[in-house]
Amino acid sequence: MIVIVMQAQATQNDVDIVTKKLVEAGLQYYLSQGEARTIIGVIGDEKSIAQLPVDVFPGVEKSIAVTESYKLVSREFRHEDTVIDVQGTKIGGRHLGIMAGPCAVESLDQLLEAASAVKRAGAQFLRGGAYKPRTSPYSFQGLEEKGLELLAEARERTGLKIVTEVLDSSAVDIVSQYADVLQIGTRNMQNFTLLKTVGKSDKPVLLKRGLAATISEWLNAAEYIMSEGNYNVILCERGIRTFETYTRNTLDLGAVAAVKSLSHLPVIVDPSHGTGHWKMVRPMARAAVAAGADGLIIEVHPNPAEALCDGNQSLTPENFSLLMDEVGAIAAITGKAIP
Amino acid sequence: MIVIVMQAQATQNDVDIVTKKLVEAGLQYYLSQGEARTIIGVIGDEKSIAQLPVDVFPGVEKSIAVTESYKLVSREFRHEDTVIDVQGTKIGGRHLGIMAGPCAVESLDQLLEAASAVKRAGAQFLRGGAYKPRTSPYSFQGLEEKGLELLAEARERTGLKIVTEVLDSSAVDIVSQYADVLQIGTRNMQNFTLLKTVGKSDKPVLLKRGLAATISEWLNAAEYIMSEGNYNVILCERGIRTFETYTRNTLDLGAVAAVKSLSHLPVIVDPSHGTGHWKMVRPMARAAVAAGADGLIIEVHPNPAEALCDGNQSLTPENFSLLMDEVGAIAAITGKAIP
Amino acid sequence: MIVIVMQAQATQNDVDIVTKKLVEAGLQYYLSQGEARTIIGVIGDEKSIAQLPVDVFPGVEKSIAVTESYKLVSREFRHEDTVIDVQGTKIGGRHLGIMAGPCAVESLDQLLEAASAVKRAGAQFLRGGAYKPRTSPYSFQGLEEKGLELLAEARERTGLKIVTEVLDSSAVDIVSQYADVLQIGTRNMQNFTLLKTVGKSDKPVLLKRGLAATISEWLNAAEYIMSEGNYNVILCERGIRTFETYTRNTLDLGAVAAVKSLSHLPVIVDPSHGTGHWKMVRPMARAAVAAGADGLIIEVHPNPAEALCDGNQSLTPENFSLLMDEVGAIAAITGKAIP
Amino acid sequence: MIVIVMQAQATQNDVDIVTKKLVEAGLQYYLSQGEARTIIGVIGDEKSIAQLPVDVFPGVEKSIAVTESYKLVSREFRHEDTVIDVQGTKIGGRHLGIMAGPCAVESLDQLLEAASAVKRAGAQFLRGGAYKPRTSPYSFQGLEEKGLELLAEARERTGLKIVTEVLDSSAVDIVSQYADVLQIGTRNMQNFTLLKTVGKSDKPVLLKRGLAATISEWLNAAEYIMSEGNYNVILCERGIRTFETYTRNTLDLGAVAAVKSLSHLPVIVDPSHGTGHWKMVRPMARAAVAAGADGLIIEVHPNPAEALCDGNQSLTPENFSLLMDEVGAIAAITGKAIP
Repeated sequence: MIVIVMQAQATQNDVDIVTKKLVEAGLQYYLSQGEARTIIGVIGDEKSIAQLPVDVFPGVEKSIAVTESYKLVSREFRHEDTVIDVQGTKIGGRHLGIMAGPCAVESLDQLLEAASAVKRAGAQFLRGGAYKPRTSPYSFQGLEEKGLELLAEARERTGLKIVTEVLDSSAVDIVSQYADVLQIGTRNMQNFTLLKTVGKSDKPVLLKRGLAATISEWLNAAEYIMSEGNYNVILCERGIRTFETYTRNTLDLGAVAAVKSLSHLPVIVDPSHGTGHWKMVRPMARAAVAAGADGLIIEVHPNPAEALCDGNQSLTPENFSLLMDEVGAIAAITGKAIP
Repeated sequence: MIVIVMQAQATQNDVDIVTKKLVEAGLQYYLSQGEARTIIGVIGDEKSIAQLPVDVFPGVEKSIAVTESYKLVSREFRHEDTVIDVQGTKIGGRHLGIMAGPCAVESLDQLLEAASAVKRAGAQFLRGGAYKPRTSPYSFQGLEEKGLELLAEARERTGLKIVTEVLDSSAVDIVSQYADVLQIGTRNMQNFTLLKTVGKSDKPVLLKRGLAATISEWLNAAEYIMSEGNYNVILCERGIRTFETYTRNTLDLGAVAAVKSLSHLPVIVDPSHGTGHWKMVRPMARAAVAAGADGLIIEVHPNPAEALCDGNQSLTPENFSLLMDEVGAIAAITGKAIP
Repeated sequence: MIVIVMQAQATQNDVDIVTKKLVEAGLQYYLSQGEARTIIGVIGDEKSIAQLPVDVFPGVEKSIAVTESYKLVSREFRHEDTVIDVQGTKIGGRHLGIMAGPCAVESLDQLLEAASAVKRAGAQFLRGGAYKPRTSPYSFQGLEEKGLELLAEARERTGLKIVTEVLDSSAVDIVSQYADVLQIGTRNMQNFTLLKTVGKSDKPVLLKRGLAATISEWLNAAEYIMSEGNYNVILCERGIRTFETYTRNTLDLGAVAAVKSLSHLPVIVDPSHGTGHWKMVRPMARAAVAAGADGLIIEVHPNPAEALCDGNQSLTPENFSLLMDEVGAIAAITGKAIP
Repeated sequence: MIVIVMQAQATQNDVDIVTKKLVEAGLQYYLSQGEARTIIGVIGDEKSIAQLPVDVFPGVEKSIAVTESYKLVSREFRHEDTVIDVQGTKIGGRHLGIMAGPCAVESLDQLLEAASAVKRAGAQFLRGGAYKPRTSPYSFQGLEEKGLELLAEARERTGLKIVTEVLDSSAVDIVSQYADVLQIGTRNMQNFTLLKTVGKSDKPVLLKRGLAATISEWLNAAEYIMSEGNYNVILCERGIRTFETYTRNTLDLGAVAAVKSLSHLPVIVDPSHGTGHWKMVRPMARAAVAAGADGLIIEVHPNPAEALCDGNQSLTPENFSLLMDEVGAIAAITGKAIP
């Protein structure tokens, strides 16, 4: 549904041409003719509406979308909160899901040390990158399949579920062999080939918000996955890009509240990338849960000073444990609990 | 303190000219000569450094500021949290300050109804605009001095302290006759004449962050006030302008955590302007306190559907009361309490 | 004129309540009832519409403004380009206005040297700050009234018209005694008291766009001035704040094209602040004129390496002269000429 | 090369620990010890520096990068402008390259009509999407391989070179069979798998700037392609995302001037996506060439009112022809010509 706003000087003939075009496209319309200008409400098949080049019709000032193009992700489609079951571990609704671990998988020792620490503190998921998207081609690009094998071994030993990133449609098969949850990173939020491919997978998908994506675009990206049949999508707010440079990104917790109203899907928060400073991770993790988030994903490293990436924003196991205590207390206030 | 980065192809002669300029300006420098390029650390009087047009010196690629120009607002200047005493009511440190009331003062009845409701729920301050900054000259501009009189009467009857906005240096005197706290709005954060004028006042100042101000510029604005002798500055995060349009602004709670580390001044949060939707005010108020804020400023109207401005983002007294319960519980976790 | 979008689950009763409220407010409405949702077009007095808190009415999802609140600045109000006559020098329409000079007035020698250089190259206006808005209170704040006197002397000797900034409503009188054009800086674009004050002045006003102001807000700021009776407003695009930090601001030349379509007022461009690097001033000055700008304001300093402010972005007289040659050639292509 | 800024209260012991870490990592350093704080310039292997988690070292306030990580794309690596030869058609240096055609390939008739029109007006390249990245899964996704066949036929008949988008690493082979230039779209600018894959191709690559990418990230993305051996990269500025919503994007022509100084690669401009309004395309195309761009990519449709996508921003052949005349005249001023 769109509204077409005619120019002040548009003639009746202009209006007639526009409405004729609408009828030809099989659409219905309602006219509102004010003194200042005429507006035309357009109703009908969304696909037909989406393809109307209304701004080139004569006398049109602009068109305004009044409904969203996503359907399956919306609260209107499904009213109750979606609870996603990852091999027996639930996230969504009353279940707060905690994902933690190092930025990158570096070695078995590093990974097991991180895994046992985060499990001890109460996390249910182990995060860790095997394929790393890096701004420069000269930065560490990850251990690749070897990293996936180490993650599987850490699952074997700790029982934690594995969350890891898949960078490209051609890697979905291999990553799916090891991961419990497929992560789509912020730079790939609108990699539509990748979205369609994980949409055909049977693994839950963690969909990070693009660093300049509107909430609407983010939900449309989730719609790509769901429209291929995979309904197990977890959204993740991880900070957006703004003019402020003190923090690595601007963590948009308002988006959490917005998503809870627009969609039934669970939404978690990444305060590590959302701030870029380990000292800010604890307060922002508390804030995220207070805002109603369904979970957290946190970078924890046994020794941040030796990390191969993102050491600046990684928590020590001790700080992560303090965070978990505070977050648990706040979750109770919002009606959630860490299982 | 700045670092001058020389171009890769800069000659020794270029470096000599630059360092000669530094010496002439009474500054010290340290050279770091790498293979790729030379950098020059510059130390000395900040004012002299600020006036160096280094980018026009020969062979200079750029200069980078490594220290901030503000002093009095910084944690380095004062290590302990500043607690501000507003006629006996404290804010900062362990004292959570709650300011609430209508966007605009409309009538005595409206104001008293709002005031008694927010007082009952636990607020210590009554907010309300007598002079309203509006995007369009055709919107309601406030009751002006009449509004100030009504605020004073509400204080008389309820004991609440009054927070109200001053729009211009010429109005500081009149507003000071009525207000307990002078509010500087987001559009005036860099109205330097106004900042200097309230800096000479003996009233505490609530300094809202500009909608596109960096944290550094915001703290420099506070420095303007403090450098005139008024040390009672309360900072207020109220959302910044980003590409996201679903919310009225993007509430930057990371800035709260940042300010707590950079400055000793109390910082409060305005989730009403920070979201623009009353339904999002409660979750974001919880999140603000969880992030470590020293207080809140919230729009409450006895009947939002009849409000002359900002009805969309105003809470009913009932919802405000629920908010206060939740916020009180979270404050306990961050070591604060509503007095 | 606004469109109210009802929620998908809104009832007929909700719609009835909303339309009853509209009638009570003296407004007309048109219903468009689609399968997915109902929308309501609202027509009538803009002031009444602006005060409707529609989002708190039952069943309302959102409201969307379809018309702008400014009137006097719009192309609909006046179809032909406004040409402003500054003491005999025209700007707007076919007349390209060139303003140039130092960031700050520093001394008579500096000012006269700059003035004679820019006049020789073809500028008609001398710019120069007597009152300087600076981020830090410890930076050079300008020569104040002494600076105004020097500007007047430069006018006396060169015949150039004077453009200089007024920072506060209380300074409009004094600045008006010396200036030919009153400049409102980017930080004061929504200093509504100042806008109203210069709106009562008989001097033309140069209104810089706020660094985070939408085009709509900028035109509304001009409306404040015009609604007080002063129709001689020159708009100035000077770069907006974005995530990009390589340039000081992001010069939004699309805004020039937009303003030419939305408004009859002349719009000029400041490539000095718009880039922050003197090397980028020439290409962006060319681009501005090619985009259809009605003029330029450029920082020129006889010796940028000695400038007290903005030396990095100041042109030498030689470079300014080259710029003028190029700009003159491009102006011919867009149907303009430097008088 | 980075600069480490120590906290004001950092001890000599903190400094010693940091410098010991630097030595262990095989790096050199220079100390600048001011009164206020110590800074440490770090020199050595960029990869080792990139992996230092300096912010978790004791007493460190922050670290600042002073050099860029890209090499092959930089002006320092190659001083002269790169001229790219696309099957005999040159772009870069004095050669202005003009790419034009419909948003999406729709049918043979539509494509041939567009192709012959743009050729007649002087374009050397035909643009047209066979695979379309769309925000919603329900929008037209392109004719896919059939579209590529039509593009090849249009080349056969007109001699125009073909520019078309490749969405995913798995599609590089098929698109390369038909295209003369592989386009990487704005959403894929940091699809690193795709960048590496086209980096191994022998086709020139048109790399659009990401809608929230800094100039530095954009050049690093080009470095990914060049580091795999493909040196034929054409950059394309197409607008960035900002708070302004009147235009579809904010066309950042300052980035063109910046890239010309930082890199030897050609950079072209897309004023169609950069504005979103066909009426703004001509002025912004002129501005782009005036700013020093090496070419343009423009959406032209034989009948914009019937276009399946982006009709609003498409030029008619007549308007495109007018644009070409103006652009040719401006190119002469910047020392370029349309071959």
